[in-house]
Amino acid sequence: VSDVVLTNGDIDHIGGLLSLREGHAFTIHATGDIHRKLDSNPVFGVLDRRTVTRAVLDPGVKLTLTSGLAIELFPIPGKVPLYLEDGEVTIDHSGKTAGVEVSHGERRFFYVPGCAEIDRDTSRRLANADLVFFDGTLWADDEMIATGTGTKTGRRMGHMPVGGFDGSLAALKSAGVERLIYVHINNTNPMLIEGSPEHRVVLAAGAEIGHDGQVIEL
Amino acid sequence: VSDVVLTNGDIDHIGGLLSLREGHAFTIHATGDIHRKLDSNPVFGVLDRRTVTRAVLDPGVKLTLTSGLAIELFPIPGKVPLYLEDGEVTIDHSGKTAGVEVSHGERRFFYVPGCAEIDRDTSRRLANADLVFFDGTLWADDEMIATGTGTKTGRRMGHMPVGGFDGSLAALKSAGVERLIYVHINNTNPMLIEGSPEHRVVLAAGAEIGHDGQVIEL
Repeated sequence: VSDVVLTNGDIDHIGGLLSLREGHAFTIHATGDIHRKLDSNPVFGVLDRRTVTRAVLDPGVKLTLTSGLAIELFPIPGKVPLYLEDGEVTIDHSGKTAGVEVSHGERRFFYVPGCAEIDRDTSRRLANADLVFFDGTLWADDEMIATGTGTKTGRRMGHMPVGGFDGSLAALKSAGVERLIYVHINNTNPMLIEGSPEHRVVLAAGAEIGHDGQVIEL
Repeated sequence: VSDVVLTNGDIDHIGGLLSLREGHAFTIHATGDIHRKLDSNPVFGVLDRRTVTRAVLDPGVKLTLTSGLAIELFPIPGKVPLYLEDGEVTIDHSGKTAGVEVSHGERRFFYVPGCAEIDRDTSRRLANADLVFFDGTLWADDEMIATGTGTKTGRRMGHMPVGGFDGSLAALKSAGVERLIYVHINNTNPMLIEGSPEHRVVLAAGAEIGHDGQVIEL
C-alpha cells in the first residue's frame, strides 16, 4: 500500500487505518475536512507522522501518484459522519463526502461508496462512464425499518436506495454507465441473496454485485 | 454481547468497539482512565450513549454481571498507549493497564493480554491459578529488531518476553499456574510455528498457544 484515498470521514472509511499502524510508510490523501476529523481523534496518532504522510487533496484537483495512477476527488451529496451528528441532519453538497475518479491514460473508473442523491452534477460526472463502483447500502429506503434492524431511512443515513424508479440503478443505467458494480452493501439488502427478485433485477439491468477478493481488469 | 471489559486503552483493545456500533445494547466496563481515552476520541461516539452504557470499574472492585459472571480488574505493569506516547516511556504500575479475574462460584480464570513485567503483586495474584490467559506478544525481547520488523524491544512496548530465564513462561510455571494459554501473539513470535524449538518449549512446559475459535470449559 503506497497511497490511501479517503472519500468520507465516517468509521467504515477511516476505521481501517487503525489496522495499517505497524510502521508501514504510505500517504493518506483526503480533503482538509477529513484530515481534521482524523486529527481530532488521538487514536489515529498510531499512524506516526514521520512514516505516514498526510496530504490534503482538494476536490477538483487531479493528482498523479508515483504508481502512475491519477486521482481526483469530486463532491457527492452526503451527510456528516454518524459520530458527529448533532440535531437535525441535512444533506451536504459541499464535498465533505466525495467520490473519486481514478485514471491511467485513457482508462478510468469512479468509486462512489456513499451517495445521498444523484443530483445533476453527479449525473453529469458519471454519464457514459466505463466503470462505476457505487453505493449499494440499501435496496429500499425503508429497509432498515422494515427489517427491524434500525429506525432510520436510507436517505437519512446518507444513502440513496438501489431499487425503485428513483433509485441509483435506474439513474445510473439511464445516464449510460457501461459497467456498474455495487459496493458498500448492507447485510439487509436483499440483492445480496442469489435468486431473489432484487438480485435478478440487478443482473437483468446488466449491473453487478461486488464481492470480496474481486479482481477487475480495465 | 451484553458486557465488554477493557483492560487497556491501546488500539488492539478498543478498536473492536468500532465494529459493535450498529445499535446493539451492551455495557462497557473499564477504569475511569480508559473511559477518558474513549471519550477523547469522537469516533467512539458511534456507540450511542442511549444504547451503550459506560460503567467505571475501579481496580479491586468485584462486580457481578447479569450473566452471573463476576469480574475484577487488577493493576498490571504496563505502558501508555502508543498513540499517547510522548517522549520517554516508563513502565506504569498505577493500573492504567489491567488484568481481569473472571469468576463464577469457585471457578475462575485470569485474562492478562498485556504485561510489561511479572512483579511481586502480579506473581502473588496469579499464583496457583487454574487458568491464565497471558501476553504472548514476543518470544524474545529483541525479536522485532532481530526480524527487521521494528526498532523497539518488547519491554519498551510494554510486553515481557515468553522465553528465557526471565520470561513469562518460567515465571508463571514456577508460580504454580495450572493451565497457561498464550494470547495476543505477534506474528514474529516463533512459538506460532508448529515444530519450532520455541513451540516445543511451550508444549513441554505444559502451556498452550491460543487460537481463533478456541472453546474452553472450566
